[in-house]
Amino acid sequence: MKIQAPKGMRDFYPEDWRLQTWLFNHWRAVSQAAGFCEFEGPIFEDLALYETKSGEGIVSELFHFEDRGGRHFANRPQMTPTLARMVAARANALPRPIKWFSIPRMCRAEKPQRGRLREFFQWNVDILGIDEVLADAEVISVAVSLLRRLGLTSQDVVVKLSSRALATAVLQSVGITPDTAATAFQLIDRAEKLEPQAFQQQWDAQFGAQVAAPAVMDLLATATLERCLKIAAESGPDGRGVATQFEELWTALQAFEADDFCEFDLRTVRGLAYYTGPVFEVRTRSAGLRALFGGGRYDNLTELLGGPRVTGVGFGAGDVPMLECLREFGKLPTLTEQLEVFVIDASHGLFPKVQEVTSRLRAADVAADFSYKRQALGKQLKQAAGRPARLAVIVGDEFATSGTVAVKDLATGEQRNVPWSAICDDARTALGLR
Amino acid sequence: MKIQAPKGMRDFYPEDWRLQTWLFNHWRAVSQAAGFCEFEGPIFEDLALYETKSGEGIVSELFHFEDRGGRHFANRPQMTPTLARMVAARANALPRPIKWFSIPRMCRAEKPQRGRLREFFQWNVDILGIDEVLADAEVISVAVSLLRRLGLTSQDVVVKLSSRALATAVLQSVGITPDTAATAFQLIDRAEKLEPQAFQQQWDAQFGAQVAAPAVMDLLATATLERCLKIAAESGPDGRGVATQFEELWTALQAFEADDFCEFDLRTVRGLAYYTGPVFEVRTRSAGLRALFGGGRYDNLTELLGGPRVTGVGFGAGDVPMLECLREFGKLPTLTEQLEVFVIDASHGLFPKVQEVTSRLRAADVAADFSYKRQALGKQLKQAAGRPARLAVIVGDEFATSGTVAVKDLATGEQRNVPWSAICDDARTALGLR
Repeated sequence: MKIQAPKGMRDFYPEDWRLQTWLFNHWRAVSQAAGFCEFEGPIFEDLALYETKSGEGIVSELFHFEDRGGRHFANRPQMTPTLARMVAARANALPRPIKWFSIPRMCRAEKPQRGRLREFFQWNVDILGIDEVLADAEVISVAVSLLRRLGLTSQDVVVKLSSRALATAVLQSVGITPDTAATAFQLIDRAEKLEPQAFQQQWDAQFGAQVAAPAVMDLLATATLERCLKIAAESGPDGRGVATQFEELWTALQAFEADDFCEFDLRTVRGLAYYTGPVFEVRTRSAGLRALFGGGRYDNLTELLGGPRVTGVGFGAGDVPMLECLREFGKLPTLTEQLEVFVIDASHGLFPKVQEVTSRLRAADVAADFSYKRQALGKQLKQAAGRPARLAVIVGDEFATSGTVAVKDLATGEQRNVPWSAICDDARTALGLR
Repeated sequence: MKIQAPKGMRDFYPEDWRLQTWLFNHWRAVSQAAGFCEFEGPIFEDLALYETKSGEGIVSELFHFEDRGGRHFANRPQMTPTLARMVAARANALPRPIKWFSIPRMCRAEKPQRGRLREFFQWNVDILGIDEVLADAEVISVAVSLLRRLGLTSQDVVVKLSSRALATAVLQSVGITPDTAATAFQLIDRAEKLEPQAFQQQWDAQFGAQVAAPAVMDLLATATLERCLKIAAESGPDGRGVATQFEELWTALQAFEADDFCEFDLRTVRGLAYYTGPVFEVRTRSAGLRALFGGGRYDNLTELLGGPRVTGVGFGAGDVPMLECLREFGKLPTLTEQLEVFVIDASHGLFPKVQEVTSRLRAADVAADFSYKRQALGKQLKQAAGRPARLAVIVGDEFATSGTVAVKDLATGEQRNVPWSAICDDARTALGLR
């Protein structure tokens, strides 16, 4: 075949898509159980939406294009700008809390590599319009619910939790001023992906010799929550507020019974520029604490996009690293087609009756199919078992003599005769469909 | 708000998305009941996939772009090229019939107007690898199942049915040679959208004075199926084959009990260049026979894309005209959030218990939520009714004294006390969740 799927993009054959659907259904079930409503937006947006201060590092990864009217667009690389735009547009009309989730497709023009594709699906869960850390705790508890639901334990994965406000107070104690904290966060976030030397160079270029990178990284890695809270509280009234807020967050996580998955880690700062408060990252405990997904509080995003202030907190979880992690932990199911009935003709002349009963079963919401080849009963039964179907309905000579068809349970081999007119009700009962 | 959704693209707020989901679930249910498996592909493809002879009129409607490696891509304007590419890539491995459906997002760079947006969702249903018209009949029967399921009758909508092979034979009888038939089809397909004068000019430019446009259009509009079959049968052995095949298609539609929605109409030829056999279009009977969706047989598409020959038949139905039609016929449902339980604290100190029981209900797959405002019981009950939730669970003073909480049915007003530890099982039973 000459033309292939573009590099870094995926073809989902039915068996692949079944797995995606399985994952999406878990995402959806956990979100809806927690009272979140699903929303969606356009696959591309005005380029300007991604060119604001909403997040450095995103613009370089855009697939962008122009229409004939000279307008510039880009396929969405993340959902939060769309979310912020939509919420800002109806900021006054939407009742609080705004609890929304979404399962959008995303495009990023990055070099395809393990766990990073040019197209992926991302589970987004956000609460907007709530300033209290109760919302942060609820969002994290939704993430934990998903992990539990997929069979992962707190031995398998961990939610690394910190706060940019708290980290700012701690960094200030070693000489990094609040106005350069954002730059420090971006460097710290990249630290694990950079060679130590490259990190050192970038750090020195920003902070010079007065704040030594190794000392800072060592502080971030070893500082306990108690110590950080103490440093913050001693830094002044703002710091005391930050410390109290973080303690409240922890208490709320306990009330939601999600704290067993959570660990304080001051190195968790996240890369996106728009985070303002608590931030978190879900990581595997094995395999070098690989990051699965993360999120945090973004209180200024709608304003950055030119709208009224609506505070927010949320996360985005990509399908690719999550499926990879589940595969490694042996948590992926084996899924087959859910065919319920395979309809068979015992002799070729009865095929119109096969079509008719198949149509009626389908209209009664029973998944039914038939063989396109007119072939012997045994071969058709084999086809039925191969799908696999749960029942076979066999239209044979009894149809002409007694107006009945045979219903065979393909698991037990049991077979019964059923009147033609009762076949839909009978099949639904046999299949346990109400 | 400065930045808006791009023109012709849609923001789906939760109430909008509920309606989309409702429609998609019907599409999915009808497809799965008929034994079709869902697949998906990339949101953009190599530009070359759309530059083949697969369909004129598509390339001008592409949003296309280049990556840093100089490769050219386009957001998909339809799904059939992706389907053909994917099937061709595994042509030998896939068992026949290949019965697939999909609900992809599409982008077309056209001028936004009523019923035509720059982004839409499209239900695609296809059978590949089957030459017989039985597959055409099954695909049409799936379309008819959907119409019935949505509450539309054969008085509301009609499936206009023809065949390009049959039309070619009939057009030959008035002097249009088979090699120019494809051009005639494109003109005929556009006829209703063009001013009569413009149509006449385009027709004359192609066929000159020897084949008068009005006479041809008149023939197409008045020719009965009997007359067309006769003309075809008399044209030679090929024509006889075409006539027999069309009769077989009709017989199969009767066996599937889908013929009551179908009407022969020789003007139905479809615009896409790749159709080779039977073609059909679903139209509303009122409001000028507005087209809802359509499809047909495309036996050469995989070859056109450079792959092995795999024949196919299918249709693509957009969400925008379908929702518009359902709105006009009053067939759209009123949908609300499906919240099951709202958990309430009778006094503020009990809020941690509210969080705890909410978490437990959610973990038991019960959609549960709570008030972010600590306020009076009555106000929280009002919030619960507003969602609307089906039950309220009230954590009050009995929790401390007897270890129970109150469960109130918000429809009947009935209220019972339930032990704290039994609340999940009790709620699931009360809600009818097994």
